[in-house]
Amino acid sequence: MFAARMDRARRRMQELRIDVVLLSVGADLPYLTGYEAMPLERLTMLVLPRDAEAVLVVPRLEAPRVDDRVGGFTLRPWDETEDPVAIVAALASGAQRIAVGDQTWARFVLGLSAALPDTAFLNASDVLSPLRAVKDADEIAALRAAAHAADAVALEMAQERFSGRTERDVSREFAQRLIDLGHSRANFAIVASGPNGASPHHEPGERVIDPGDVVVCDFGGRMRGYCSDITRTYVVGHPTDEFADLFDVLAEAQARAVDAVEPGVPAEEIDAVARRIITDAGYGSYFIHRTGHGIGLDAHEEPYLVAGNDEKLEVGNVFSVEPGIYLPGRYGARIEDIVVVTGEGPESLNLAPHHAYIVD
Amino acid sequence: MFAARMDRARRRMQELRIDVVLLSVGADLPYLTGYEAMPLERLTMLVLPRDAEAVLVVPRLEAPRVDDRVGGFTLRPWDETEDPVAIVAALASGAQRIAVGDQTWARFVLGLSAALPDTAFLNASDVLSPLRAVKDADEIAALRAAAHAADAVALEMAQERFSGRTERDVSREFAQRLIDLGHSRANFAIVASGPNGASPHHEPGERVIDPGDVVVCDFGGRMRGYCSDITRTYVVGHPTDEFADLFDVLAEAQARAVDAVEPGVPAEEIDAVARRIITDAGYGSYFIHRTGHGIGLDAHEEPYLVAGNDEKLEVGNVFSVEPGIYLPGRYGARIEDIVVVTGEGPESLNLAPHHAYIVD
Repeated sequence: MFAARMDRARRRMQELRIDVVLLSVGADLPYLTGYEAMPLERLTMLVLPRDAEAVLVVPRLEAPRVDDRVGGFTLRPWDETEDPVAIVAALASGAQRIAVGDQTWARFVLGLSAALPDTAFLNASDVLSPLRAVKDADEIAALRAAAHAADAVALEMAQERFSGRTERDVSREFAQRLIDLGHSRANFAIVASGPNGASPHHEPGERVIDPGDVVVCDFGGRMRGYCSDITRTYVVGHPTDEFADLFDVLAEAQARAVDAVEPGVPAEEIDAVARRIITDAGYGSYFIHRTGHGIGLDAHEEPYLVAGNDEKLEVGNVFSVEPGIYLPGRYGARIEDIVVVTGEGPESLNLAPHHAYIVD
Repeated sequence: MFAARMDRARRRMQELRIDVVLLSVGADLPYLTGYEAMPLERLTMLVLPRDAEAVLVVPRLEAPRVDDRVGGFTLRPWDETEDPVAIVAALASGAQRIAVGDQTWARFVLGLSAALPDTAFLNASDVLSPLRAVKDADEIAALRAAAHAADAVALEMAQERFSGRTERDVSREFAQRLIDLGHSRANFAIVASGPNGASPHHEPGERVIDPGDVVVCDFGGRMRGYCSDITRTYVVGHPTDEFADLFDVLAEAQARAVDAVEPGVPAEEIDAVARRIITDAGYGSYFIHRTGHGIGLDAHEEPYLVAGNDEKLEVGNVFSVEPGIYLPGRYGARIEDIVVVTGEGPESLNLAPHHAYIVD
């Protein structure tokens, strides 16, 4: 599997006239080798030449973490008194065009650029994102399993009391339940109650959840390497009529956007479908983010469902569809599922019902 | 406090002839503003000119997260269809020398560099690391509180059964207890049993801990913004004589290295003290990493205690002192405390005893 991916990467390097790809932190490296770099100050970097064997430059104390039986690269452990940037620069010397992993730390990019002043540096996502954006059956199975675990957490939490608890406390419970249901880690668990719900990326804090609150809960993590990400909206007690009307609009926008998912449709069209429905209902200025993002080894990756992205959806793309409506100072609402593009219509990996969950 | 830090940063920019500092993910931004960028694909970036007001460029959906009452900057939220790199480039235009945060994503550095082709890019750590490396009393108090919570976890775990459990299970318990004792998150919890202990950054896995195993436990997280990091070595049942001898050497090396900590001593000398003792006992080739790293808002930051770093320790520096001995295929051992440089001798923030903890 890793060998086939590396072959595809090399073919794209050929198309793009890229001589060497350099991968450090982020998901490109595990996609090609199964190994994830530690996000620390000691450089880990795969040097992948188009026409020669790859070398994984790794801190010596982390070399025992690497499973190099997967093949496709040799190890070059570096000692604490060596300069890893110099090692990488020597391995990449002579390259005219180098593509470097998008999340690589600036200090390493600047160091490499100084060491290789005649080299053009490009984004490795140009090489790897198109490959990673088309998931194979095993990847979709892993995303489905992660999504189902997240569904179960959403439904379990619908049985729990929210009122009288802090957002932070409820957030911890979402995260813990993801772990309990097989996730290796929780990436985030947004619990945004009352007025905080109008902040889409709210950081759960000490606010105590009150009766009557609308609570946006957006949580996800990693299971078998692949990410989950789901949003459901909970209401403590009785929803108001205004909320019920707003939520109907939102649910309609989410459902129609999913219906519009098929191969060949531009990514931005899915965003437009959701936005049109919300705008027609008068909430357009309260839908302040794009409709979705790809998901896989990374929580956010291509394709992005956003105005201006006219790339066409392909079979095997997997992304969130997550419109939201945010009323500043009052509350917010969002519904998010992970959706797969197939040849036979869209498949929502999340199966938990979309209605607002009434809790105590 | 933030205003004073920004003043100091601007004075260093003057010394280094840096026109603009650009800060994104990582600890430099919260050090100056209290705000931490989300580590996602939407760019958050503080544009800090030497001679003009700072601007925080932030995704509109994350703008409500920012507490701009702290002052010192204005907000420039960007919409999903805007190009944040172009916004930053316009704000920084005319700068000859720009220093960019060390952990900034490569794609943003490459984008900025293309947009500002006549600008020299340097590392923001040149500006900020010397400031961040000298902690004030409040910062040391926060590090002390985090260290004491980690001590308590180490001691609690000495009462728990290890044998028959997987490393992953024990690791989860370390992490959970950090949270239970006030940490906002666990950054890592290495549990490296038996032969895995010879891998200093071992990823806890499915290995079941056996009677007789030596288990290296290195864990830490964040509490009130500041990091903890402690290592203690546990033994299931009776330690062998060989282990006891090795561990005596290690404890001696760690203690003497701490004793050597005082203002004016080169950072590498602390490493040399520990290494000499371990080498003299015949274990030199099994101590395969540096002796320590600074700690603060970041788990790893300057100063680094490593051969080649001749920078002199200063009052207010805080770092780990953590020699280890690793016998490939057999086991490892490490002792780690966080230590403060003061005018009246070194202060170990960790108080949990150093001896090997005997567990069932």
